[in-house]
Amino acid sequence: MAVKTDTEVIIGGKVFTLSGYESEEYLQRVASYLNNKLAEYNRLDGFTRQPPARQNILMQLNIADDYFKARKQLAVLEEELQAKEKELYDLKHELVASQMKLENAEKSLKSVRKELEDSSRKIVRLETELADKKERTDRNERNKKE
Amino acid sequence: MAVKTDTEVIIGGKVFTLSGYESEEYLQRVASYLNNKLAEYNRLDGFTRQPPARQNILMQLNIADDYFKARKQLAVLEEELQAKEKELYDLKHELVASQMKLENAEKSLKSVRKELEDSSRKIVRLETELADKKERTDRNERNKKE
Repeated sequence: MAVKTDTEVIIGGKVFTLSGYESEEYLQRVASYLNNKLAEYNRLDGFTRQPPARQNILMQLNIADDYFKARKQLAVLEEELQAKEKELYDLKHELVASQMKLENAEKSLKSVRKELEDSSRKIVRLETELADKKERTDRNERNKKE
Repeated sequence: MAVKTDTEVIIGGKVFTLSGYESEEYLQRVASYLNNKLAEYNRLDGFTRQPPARQNILMQLNIADDYFKARKQLAVLEEELQAKEKELYDLKHELVASQMKLENAEKSLKSVRKELEDSSRKIVRLETELADKKERTDRNERNKKE
């Protein structure tokens, strides 16, 4: 179970003690993100001249904008992921169909090759029989002439 | 080109005029998100008793936390997407290999079938020849006896 801890972070030059379940490392990363944003804003004349309440709201809007942009990107990725899932599904079906066709073609090939072997044997037998008959006929012819 | 517009939003009960390129609809959605967060915080006794500077920082940290969580999710989805890409790549290769095997098997089948046809024709020819020879021999035998 996570343990609640106190972490000190410095944001905008002020020390804040945060109590929670997040790791110190995570909270420092978030604090550093906020300080970078604040530093960017403080470089703008227009920002520092604003009343503090407005400065605060602009910061909040700016962070929320990062969040909304990330969410938009998330939606895009989720759509892409779904499209890939669909593509994978279709491809798997195509592969199974192709493998089944291949299996059938290989079965047919085996059986036609077997038939061809039988035919070849039959041809040898017929040719032998025919040669025999020819020899016998030739012998008879010779006998008649003698 | 986008046109810079002024949009009035109400955040925490105060009106702010925002000047920028974002659509009014988008800015109102962001403002509404901030107001919901503020309303949640204001329901907590602990929050309202904090000095305003700390309240501001807590709000900023909370929004930034949403952003960091979305970014973490983005990283997860990007990894998933890469894994799917890899799976798709492998599957496409497997499909091509299977289709090539199928093509070869079908070519072999065609050629073996052609050979079988030739053999069958040869068998018919040989059998006819053999039957002819037999008939001739039989005729000769009958002639001899007569």
